[in-house]
Amino acid sequence: MAIQEQKVLLAHGSGGKLSSALVKKYFIDKFSNPVLDQVTDSAILKADSSYIAFTTDSYVIDPVFFPGGDIGKLAVCGTVNDLAVAGASPRFLSAAFVIEEGFPLSHLEMITNSMAQTSGQAGVKIVTGDTKVVNRGKCDKIFITTTGIGVLNPRYRHISRGENIKTGDAVIINGSIGDHAIAVLGVRENIRFEEELFSDCAPLNTLIDELLEAGVGIKFMRDLTRGGLGTILAEVTENKTYGICIEEKQIPLKDVVKGACEIFGFDPLYLANEGKVMIVTDKNDAVKALSIMKKNLYGKNAMIIGEITKDFRGKAALNSVTGGKRIIDKLTGEMLPRIC
Amino acid sequence: MAIQEQKVLLAHGSGGKLSSALVKKYFIDKFSNPVLDQVTDSAILKADSSYIAFTTDSYVIDPVFFPGGDIGKLAVCGTVNDLAVAGASPRFLSAAFVIEEGFPLSHLEMITNSMAQTSGQAGVKIVTGDTKVVNRGKCDKIFITTTGIGVLNPRYRHISRGENIKTGDAVIINGSIGDHAIAVLGVRENIRFEEELFSDCAPLNTLIDELLEAGVGIKFMRDLTRGGLGTILAEVTENKTYGICIEEKQIPLKDVVKGACEIFGFDPLYLANEGKVMIVTDKNDAVKALSIMKKNLYGKNAMIIGEITKDFRGKAALNSVTGGKRIIDKLTGEMLPRIC
Repeated sequence: MAIQEQKVLLAHGSGGKLSSALVKKYFIDKFSNPVLDQVTDSAILKADSSYIAFTTDSYVIDPVFFPGGDIGKLAVCGTVNDLAVAGASPRFLSAAFVIEEGFPLSHLEMITNSMAQTSGQAGVKIVTGDTKVVNRGKCDKIFITTTGIGVLNPRYRHISRGENIKTGDAVIINGSIGDHAIAVLGVRENIRFEEELFSDCAPLNTLIDELLEAGVGIKFMRDLTRGGLGTILAEVTENKTYGICIEEKQIPLKDVVKGACEIFGFDPLYLANEGKVMIVTDKNDAVKALSIMKKNLYGKNAMIIGEITKDFRGKAALNSVTGGKRIIDKLTGEMLPRIC
Repeated sequence: MAIQEQKVLLAHGSGGKLSSALVKKYFIDKFSNPVLDQVTDSAILKADSSYIAFTTDSYVIDPVFFPGGDIGKLAVCGTVNDLAVAGASPRFLSAAFVIEEGFPLSHLEMITNSMAQTSGQAGVKIVTGDTKVVNRGKCDKIFITTTGIGVLNPRYRHISRGENIKTGDAVIINGSIGDHAIAVLGVRENIRFEEELFSDCAPLNTLIDELLEAGVGIKFMRDLTRGGLGTILAEVTENKTYGICIEEKQIPLKDVVKGACEIFGFDPLYLANEGKVMIVTDKNDAVKALSIMKKNLYGKNAMIIGEITKDFRGKAALNSVTGGKRIIDKLTGEMLPRIC
């Protein structure tokens, strides 16, 4: 009798439950060391006297160009944001390209122009890179892997681990969820929305710097990419002595995104974003944080969406607009492959 | 009249002339900054008080498993070696995976086992990573991008730039060329060689450490990957006031590799290696360097292959075994796509 071989599924790349399981079994357990075992998006390293944050992501988005950005802008923003949410100041990027034979050089140029512009805006330098070309049909157009180094003030070391989170802390988001996923879906499926929708793809380090410089008591930050707000909420509370309670009516959501979710049967909580951050702050700093964020282009629609609670220990709960309450689990399966 | 669009060619990924041109036009010129503009394999960064080396490479080798290694071992060795040849001590790696839907998990496990083993051997820690899965047919099995951070003793800062190279310096190689390329070609084309051939894929940081610790006056090092010894020789001398003269008969070359080159019409000078380094040392240290290398597993067949010369200014010349002399140019076109 043949034993069916276990294979990689699309859902292994979803950023949800199966992703976590795959990463744990095949990567973390095998490469185990005290830094990796933390499983934060940025590794915090001590290089002689200073702390550096170190993060990597591969971008395989389809299509390469979408409303509000392209794979190059995305690759810079994603890595900048991973460093920024660790409390680090992004400084240097590497960029590795895998390109399909036959890819138009004019498209490559648009992508690298966009990377140059975005890295300038974010104040980071692309300092090293690599290019591989594979035969036609052996990759889909272009994949970019960006890796970032940030300098971390030891004062902010606790942020990536969230070790200072406590009951009563406020949960804030800098704007509407799901814009990236639905904008990409729109161009992929050739959908005409009633209202123009752009990906939220943006570098968030300036917004975050403004909060840190103002002395806002930030306990934790995470950018809401694959897996969306829902997966992050579930991850933050996993195995913790506290819970999170979120008010659905407080979560910014554009009508066009809401409408698309209804049509396609998506839960906006799990949609990917590329310019959204969830911030946990001391409750006494929440209003101050909100007012700082609202002055920044990327935080205009910031909202306090919930709080850290004694209840729902180890879980995230949502008070829905219709009055019900539900526990938010990590994403299972894959809603939209190749969204980043 | 339609204007034919310029497209990416396989040769743009060869590591030779077209690669240089592509990288210059689309990457370096656009992302220009003092670090990137050096165009060294590892970027040297100053993070507060210490210097760090930073390098990235994507691995797209086909097939994923080959005699002497696999894509995982290759991805660790390649990045470790890029740091080591900059004079840096490799410390931390990130690993980003793009995996094709349907890839057997057992193969992924063999690859990550191999990465764990090789990083242990090299004394580096894999501290962060990423996994993306793309639909079947949208990439070929698995691509891995490793990015490395090394700590650089300021005493060795000159090495990656080769700024202390002078006439009379010795050019040393740690063993036979072309083993990797021909071993991969063998399995790809299902060739039975008379003698078993393995890729030379290996981490070279220990070998290099031994030389540095012994105080050998190393002026320059470069690992001989895509483009081979020939391309590196041409690059090292490009726009320089000195030349290089190499003795063909001194270059270690296995009979089986030589035979395959004759059959397939390859020039071994341009074949990819994954465990070979070219070292330029002060001539007075050449014999000492050679004796240290010969004691290391990865330097047993080390040879002094030539010297830095006043002649052939800005060029590399080869004294062939048949008595002729020829100028060594960078690789043009692509000999073996997806060799690393």
